[in-house]
Amino acid sequence: MVPTAPTGRLLDSPFLRACRREPAGRVPVWFMRQAGRALPEYRAVRGDGSILDAIRRPDLATEITLQPVRRYGVDAAILFSDIVVPVAAIGFGVEVARGVGPVVDRPFREERDLDRLRPLEPEADIPYVLETVRNLVGELDVPLIGFAGAPFTVASYLVEGGPSRSYVHTKRLMHADPTLWGRLLGRLADLSVTFLRAQVDAGAAAVQLFDSWAGALGPRDYERFVLPASRRVLEGLADLDVPRIHFGVGTGELLHLMAEAGADVVGVDWRVPLDEARRRVGPDRAVQGNLDPAVCLAPWEVVADEARDVLTRAGGQPGHVFNLGHGVLPETDPVVLERLVELVHAEGRADVPGPAPTGGGA
Amino acid sequence: MVPTAPTGRLLDSPFLRACRREPAGRVPVWFMRQAGRALPEYRAVRGDGSILDAIRRPDLATEITLQPVRRYGVDAAILFSDIVVPVAAIGFGVEVARGVGPVVDRPFREERDLDRLRPLEPEADIPYVLETVRNLVGELDVPLIGFAGAPFTVASYLVEGGPSRSYVHTKRLMHADPTLWGRLLGRLADLSVTFLRAQVDAGAAAVQLFDSWAGALGPRDYERFVLPASRRVLEGLADLDVPRIHFGVGTGELLHLMAEAGADVVGVDWRVPLDEARRRVGPDRAVQGNLDPAVCLAPWEVVADEARDVLTRAGGQPGHVFNLGHGVLPETDPVVLERLVELVHAEGRADVPGPAPTGGGA
Repeated sequence: MVPTAPTGRLLDSPFLRACRREPAGRVPVWFMRQAGRALPEYRAVRGDGSILDAIRRPDLATEITLQPVRRYGVDAAILFSDIVVPVAAIGFGVEVARGVGPVVDRPFREERDLDRLRPLEPEADIPYVLETVRNLVGELDVPLIGFAGAPFTVASYLVEGGPSRSYVHTKRLMHADPTLWGRLLGRLADLSVTFLRAQVDAGAAAVQLFDSWAGALGPRDYERFVLPASRRVLEGLADLDVPRIHFGVGTGELLHLMAEAGADVVGVDWRVPLDEARRRVGPDRAVQGNLDPAVCLAPWEVVADEARDVLTRAGGQPGHVFNLGHGVLPETDPVVLERLVELVHAEGRADVPGPAPTGGGA
Repeated sequence: MVPTAPTGRLLDSPFLRACRREPAGRVPVWFMRQAGRALPEYRAVRGDGSILDAIRRPDLATEITLQPVRRYGVDAAILFSDIVVPVAAIGFGVEVARGVGPVVDRPFREERDLDRLRPLEPEADIPYVLETVRNLVGELDVPLIGFAGAPFTVASYLVEGGPSRSYVHTKRLMHADPTLWGRLLGRLADLSVTFLRAQVDAGAAAVQLFDSWAGALGPRDYERFVLPASRRVLEGLADLDVPRIHFGVGTGELLHLMAEAGADVVGVDWRVPLDEARRRVGPDRAVQGNLDPAVCLAPWEVVADEARDVLTRAGGQPGHVFNLGHGVLPETDPVVLERLVELVHAEGRADVPGPAPTGGGA
């Protein structure tokens, strides 16, 4: 199968239509971290190894990516990956510890650490990712979303050495040495561009750039220290003509800037009502979100009520991809997500005429 | 000294004037967690015991509360305390573990756990807090701020059993059993009212209600499940005629609701620019904040630049208490905070005529 065939075949899928803000018969839905520990079939195949080891096995990564599509009937698959895959592949010295997250052997602290961030050569460094993507586009009948970490969030792991609450080292570096910070983010931007372009070349029909922890910054710091690098990634994909989704947690005050960075679709966590999010990103972007993942652990009537509130606030206009406001929690009952997909497909509308709502749409 | 004397004496202090949105010669400043590990004199006296043990020693708690006032010249002291003091005092079984936070022996999970939350009797349960407050108002020449946790944040510790990232158990309880949730928050509201009234009776001139983790909720859940209990606390203090400050982290979408709950002063973290925060809380509330605590670890020129941005966005109008957007980080150099107080006192203005700005004030 030639790489571009699946994309061509799926151009009219509800997911890609929604990303392009075109009217569609239904609201498409997928879930961040839909492939994961909430699924018994995932736990059955995943084994005890590192997630990076699992990602390096195309057979396993393919199966894990397909599982939620089979079970939930979601409108898109997302590559089973991790935001540290490219930096790990070029030998920066990163592992992902269970229950902790990325852990870095020697954190990034000074100029010579830049030498540890050489360019990514996809065929040589991440052949397993390309093989997984090719496997998937041969099997899927929904679009595959490529996956990469955004420069700030990847940098925060490299600089802190692991997950953080206060991002002290990261913020100190950006403020104390903006030149070195800019060079670090430039390298990471180039890695993300190469990583995502390779996924699209192999058949991915959209991409999501995860700036999960950008919400740790106020808008002033974000605009000066992060936006240029995120823009470099998103604009570096502009010629590929695939939707670019840009997501982070706690980004209410950054949504307009994340849109400006070059996103076609802005992911929104559950803190900002979707009508207000639409107002902030403007009428020329789609939005993705934003049910609180913790709501999925509540009784079904509550889940349904909250999901309907999300649909109502999206306003029925084109340009809404239903999702959670962050990843599926491991404690989630998969049956709830199955029912949620059914509800969104049955009740969601994406064909109400008129521009995107400008607030108060509920 | 009679309890009301210090308050009377300090009614014209810059801090209390700012809380009342009255013109003042300068912008008052204090720092959340100003008494703490950033200070060598704190580390010298604090010892290795639990913070709850330190709070139970009026001599030590008094000294710790006074240290930052002496060193920094801040415009207010805040009682050295912890949000779990009242629940610990009535025997719920809570400790504060170093580097972790509150840890609960048996988390709150069902109706009979309500029996573990009896009313607080200040003279019997927390005589040490009253003694500390009385000591302080005898010594201080700036107002003393009383301290309590808000019902949601205290509940999150009791239900989760400790700190959490996703608040799964807490959100499940509120959604699955709103009646029990409401009773839990009602009990905690009553504890906070009693705790704060006792502090004011002993001489505190203002109070701050910490709903540190309310930002984990979207506005819809906050309004239904949290606002009524927070209002019960704040309205339960209305007759005391002391300013009520209400603060949480990541609360950009909740600021208007936290104002509605009955706050005179709304604390703002660093994510929302202060001109926008003023717009959200409305002209009849003061704001407190909001320098990113991590900025204090940057070179002084950066600290000064960011502090000036906060002052500019506050607009020079009355009704701004300068503070950090969250607590002082332990890694902070106290010299930076000293200089910050000097800068705010020298450059801050709180006498520009006209209403509070309605956005775009920078």
